[in-house]
Amino acid sequence: MQIGIIGLGRMGGNISLRLMRHNHGTVVYDTNEAAVDALAAQGATKATSIADMVAKLPSPRTVWVMLPAGAITEATITEVASHMQAGDIIIDGGNTMYKDDIRRAAELKAKGIVYVDVGTSGGVWGLERGYCMMIGGEKAAVDHLDPIFKALAPGMGDVPRTPGREERNPTAEEGYLHCGPAGSGHFVKMIHNGIEYGMMQAFAEGFNVMKHKNSPDLPENMRFDLNMGDIAEVWRRGSVVSSWLLDLTAQALATDEDLEAFSGSVSDSGEGRWTIDAAVEEAVPVPVLAASLWARFSSRAQSTYGDKMLSAMRFGFGGHLEKKK
Amino acid sequence: MQIGIIGLGRMGGNISLRLMRHNHGTVVYDTNEAAVDALAAQGATKATSIADMVAKLPSPRTVWVMLPAGAITEATITEVASHMQAGDIIIDGGNTMYKDDIRRAAELKAKGIVYVDVGTSGGVWGLERGYCMMIGGEKAAVDHLDPIFKALAPGMGDVPRTPGREERNPTAEEGYLHCGPAGSGHFVKMIHNGIEYGMMQAFAEGFNVMKHKNSPDLPENMRFDLNMGDIAEVWRRGSVVSSWLLDLTAQALATDEDLEAFSGSVSDSGEGRWTIDAAVEEAVPVPVLAASLWARFSSRAQSTYGDKMLSAMRFGFGGHLEKKK
Amino acid sequence: MQIGIIGLGRMGGNISLRLMRHNHGTVVYDTNEAAVDALAAQGATKATSIADMVAKLPSPRTVWVMLPAGAITEATITEVASHMQAGDIIIDGGNTMYKDDIRRAAELKAKGIVYVDVGTSGGVWGLERGYCMMIGGEKAAVDHLDPIFKALAPGMGDVPRTPGREERNPTAEEGYLHCGPAGSGHFVKMIHNGIEYGMMQAFAEGFNVMKHKNSPDLPENMRFDLNMGDIAEVWRRGSVVSSWLLDLTAQALATDEDLEAFSGSVSDSGEGRWTIDAAVEEAVPVPVLAASLWARFSSRAQSTYGDKMLSAMRFGFGGHLEKKK
Amino acid sequence: MQIGIIGLGRMGGNISLRLMRHNHGTVVYDTNEAAVDALAAQGATKATSIADMVAKLPSPRTVWVMLPAGAITEATITEVASHMQAGDIIIDGGNTMYKDDIRRAAELKAKGIVYVDVGTSGGVWGLERGYCMMIGGEKAAVDHLDPIFKALAPGMGDVPRTPGREERNPTAEEGYLHCGPAGSGHFVKMIHNGIEYGMMQAFAEGFNVMKHKNSPDLPENMRFDLNMGDIAEVWRRGSVVSSWLLDLTAQALATDEDLEAFSGSVSDSGEGRWTIDAAVEEAVPVPVLAASLWARFSSRAQSTYGDKMLSAMRFGFGGHLEKKK
Repeated sequence: MQIGIIGLGRMGGNISLRLMRHNHGTVVYDTNEAAVDALAAQGATKATSIADMVAKLPSPRTVWVMLPAGAITEATITEVASHMQAGDIIIDGGNTMYKDDIRRAAELKAKGIVYVDVGTSGGVWGLERGYCMMIGGEKAAVDHLDPIFKALAPGMGDVPRTPGREERNPTAEEGYLHCGPAGSGHFVKMIHNGIEYGMMQAFAEGFNVMKHKNSPDLPENMRFDLNMGDIAEVWRRGSVVSSWLLDLTAQALATDEDLEAFSGSVSDSGEGRWTIDAAVEEAVPVPVLAASLWARFSSRAQSTYGDKMLSAMRFGFGGHLEKKK
Repeated sequence: MQIGIIGLGRMGGNISLRLMRHNHGTVVYDTNEAAVDALAAQGATKATSIADMVAKLPSPRTVWVMLPAGAITEATITEVASHMQAGDIIIDGGNTMYKDDIRRAAELKAKGIVYVDVGTSGGVWGLERGYCMMIGGEKAAVDHLDPIFKALAPGMGDVPRTPGREERNPTAEEGYLHCGPAGSGHFVKMIHNGIEYGMMQAFAEGFNVMKHKNSPDLPENMRFDLNMGDIAEVWRRGSVVSSWLLDLTAQALATDEDLEAFSGSVSDSGEGRWTIDAAVEEAVPVPVLAASLWARFSSRAQSTYGDKMLSAMRFGFGGHLEKKK
Repeated sequence: MQIGIIGLGRMGGNISLRLMRHNHGTVVYDTNEAAVDALAAQGATKATSIADMVAKLPSPRTVWVMLPAGAITEATITEVASHMQAGDIIIDGGNTMYKDDIRRAAELKAKGIVYVDVGTSGGVWGLERGYCMMIGGEKAAVDHLDPIFKALAPGMGDVPRTPGREERNPTAEEGYLHCGPAGSGHFVKMIHNGIEYGMMQAFAEGFNVMKHKNSPDLPENMRFDLNMGDIAEVWRRGSVVSSWLLDLTAQALATDEDLEAFSGSVSDSGEGRWTIDAAVEEAVPVPVLAASLWARFSSRAQSTYGDKMLSAMRFGFGGHLEKKK
Repeated sequence: MQIGIIGLGRMGGNISLRLMRHNHGTVVYDTNEAAVDALAAQGATKATSIADMVAKLPSPRTVWVMLPAGAITEATITEVASHMQAGDIIIDGGNTMYKDDIRRAAELKAKGIVYVDVGTSGGVWGLERGYCMMIGGEKAAVDHLDPIFKALAPGMGDVPRTPGREERNPTAEEGYLHCGPAGSGHFVKMIHNGIEYGMMQAFAEGFNVMKHKNSPDLPENMRFDLNMGDIAEVWRRGSVVSSWLLDLTAQALATDEDLEAFSGSVSDSGEGRWTIDAAVEEAVPVPVLAASLWARFSSRAQSTYGDKMLSAMRFGFGGHLEKKK
């Protein structure tokens, strides 16, 4: 197939490369011309503008937008749509809020343009390992795009098949899934990231307890000087917590046991926050997913005023001094 | 009554004073002789040693130990007991772990000595306001000590009576309560402090959200520049969150809106921790009480290694840079 | 002053009564005519429609809308505005989401109508005790309405003055406060309720741990059979957790120690949820406020599917049986 | 090697089988004679008592105790030791609290007996996949037992090697690790289980939010009817949350999408609880690990009294009715 790709950062560029490796043609565009040229050198067709890209695609045209969620994605999709005709397809492969997908799909449908949202997991490893994709949109369009998704997905690989799935959706085993109508792809990806936050925080807390087991505040016969890297490694084989996140942890610890390269100030992104909002809307308790988000906020000193208030109260009732020096 | 008091810090000294104001006699001892002299100057009988104190008390003798929980209280009680006879009473008014009370009461009972544990709330305000006391131990001894507790307690004051309590334990309305056997006084006080942590944290979080409502990261038309001190004050009258902790918060904010006097590093004490342990033993969920404790730990940078691990994983799967500069 | 009141439920009706007791005139309207007649019998002026109410008010007209937040309040305000002129004032005294206030104030301002949002705490007790009010809107209008707010507020009462507030906003001591522009009143009220959730949950957890201290699963010498009602009562005098919520708890326990009247299924309302959303927007950690909300969701069996998934995993790796009988 | 095994339940029996498959000899004992006979039929040497087992082992003797943590393990180890000589080794392969290990190791050392604690992960899958083992004790004894651990461990298998570990402990890659002195094996296993709780809860919450995304309480255009089994499956390939726990979840969902086989009442075991205690001792925040434990407690209706108290307070201040029908 031929597909246009807008946004040639780490994700969009690699998606283009992986598609070309699977013998699909890509027409690429980015405001950064060097990124366009780099992909053109590897076989992509260069576009000099969004209009140019759309013009260079065969009908029905498919354009994959791979940009940061928010205003830039919104504006880009609007412009892409302005050059399209009924029956064309726009894919938003970024991390858009699913409610924006629902709105956009309805708006574009009025013009006959089909909107497909794709949540894409795999990060910097996707080029080689393939991307796990969660897809929302009309079935006909998703079926039409199947060759694209199959090329980008990891495939079954050496992950053992799940018994009892013989009658179920076979693409799930390949690493891509049509989840439902527009928005559902990004919704599932959002929850995926929410879970990811929780798993990461579980590891972080467990290792932190082990690290502090050698604290001088503990009685001497109750201390252990544990090797974080070796423990991460041993859990990779046969333990219940074995996971890709553990693999990455073991890699980081293999060469930096004290994680001295890192500042301890941890960012968060929209999906982790929106997961909490979605849970609140549904009246569903998410203590672990939320605690993971709060931990990141706290790592960035966002609780300081509240902490000072605790000290102020302690001073008020008990005369405890926790004053600034 | 005559009562011996060991430990003349802020709490023990004020207890002695309040008892004397209510016409009880106190025999006082502390390793800090100046503290003993100061109270003697106000009418207390000076003791030069624990043995001396016990000797100066009429039989059956009562000694109130008011020292930091742990080894010093343990050693002191052991020494007091060594000078006592069957029928004498030792009161531990500190913040002892209730399991230690249970053990001690059994040990002392073997010698005929009665052990009474008193959880004491009221802090630096107790001298004037009186102390709220939660008492554990044998009923006969607690009844015998009633004049002491009545003198120390706040009394009914201007707090309105609770309807429907006509047939219930009248001392509860005076601010002291025989909770049950040895250990139960400190157990109830421990839970009291656990609840206190939760209430404090609820205020801290709420005010912190209000303070950040003026953050430049928010859209300009969604910001409010709120006056923390005025808000604390207005809630003191007629609102559902009115409480003594709010009164103290309003006091702190009245003269230091930004709480600049405080460092933001918040201590915790045994009771907050033991409450979590007790809940774990009982298989009872305490998400708020525990979250309050974690927040204090985090305020002291106890999560840093875990936070760095989050950054390490983020770098591993997404190439996100949160490296130390 | 003369003021129109729409919505004569428990809150609106009592507000009308309290205003009349302070010699203000009220013109009242409700779709439930019986409620209108009841107030008319006590001196209010009866209105038969919103148009009729507005017509019966002197210029500049002030209408207080006291209805459930959401569509009905929105529609009512729209209709009220349609009968008003520039310079008139609409007060929303309900629990509206503050972003709706911001939007509405801007819309009404275009017509010259002033919008004032009032967060009102005090519940069924407000008629006698007065209402704690948090007010958002333009200063001129709020100043104009001062007699209304003063009448509804609790006043200084017997709550001691906070030292150091001599130079600060005096109305805060009376129980009402102009917090800032439109929306800020409901924002502060929203946070108030978020804090309220946290305080309530702190008490609930603490008492639950005490209640379970008599569980047969504990070793016999580690059990206490504690009296919940007496403990709530004793803490009311001199303890750090003394608060209005504790007073209410003591009242409930005085006649129903086991709280057998209640189902254990706990509702929540918008403010608790929006507080979490606001914290997420600000990147401010609110572990306690959020945990309080999750606890209410869980009390309504909203976590069951997730719990079953835990059992399914336990069965998967360990063969543990937690199957349905 | 020859090794004695006491406790032939699912774990102990499979350990014996796996050792025999790797050409080690086992002398087996259990109070359930049928279990002994079953293993004897597969080549194990039958023992009729602990004394008989010890007598049948060559010197220095090694006995692996694989019983539920607590009194039965304690009594069994005491009896085993009574039949042993200096230089013999006792392995506790169960889930013993690490502080008990530290105490026991010291007690046995006085008799010259070496105590080794082994935390064993792998559950019912260990016979085929091998057991991930975390080992505490004296280095000489652990080295002596290396052939046993190598046989039980999964080995490197097809899990890719971690770059940068060339100079590090090679057994970690095989799935077993000498963590440190006595107690450290069970400590690391305890933390492993704490992390496991957190990861499980993260998945449970995420899937629960997805399941409730089809709730009739949501606006109709905001609902998705998602297929839980397909989503679990698609995440197994290329996503950041891929893990063994996800594999097990996908298996459960493949044949029971609604998890109707399960009751929703989830047990917990010592390790999850002790992890919280350890964190409290170290003053390390563990919001996610703790929240996971609270969720299990709540699933067993352990919060009901507290929930009723919330309703009682809501009734008290707002007249909200959440009464039992």
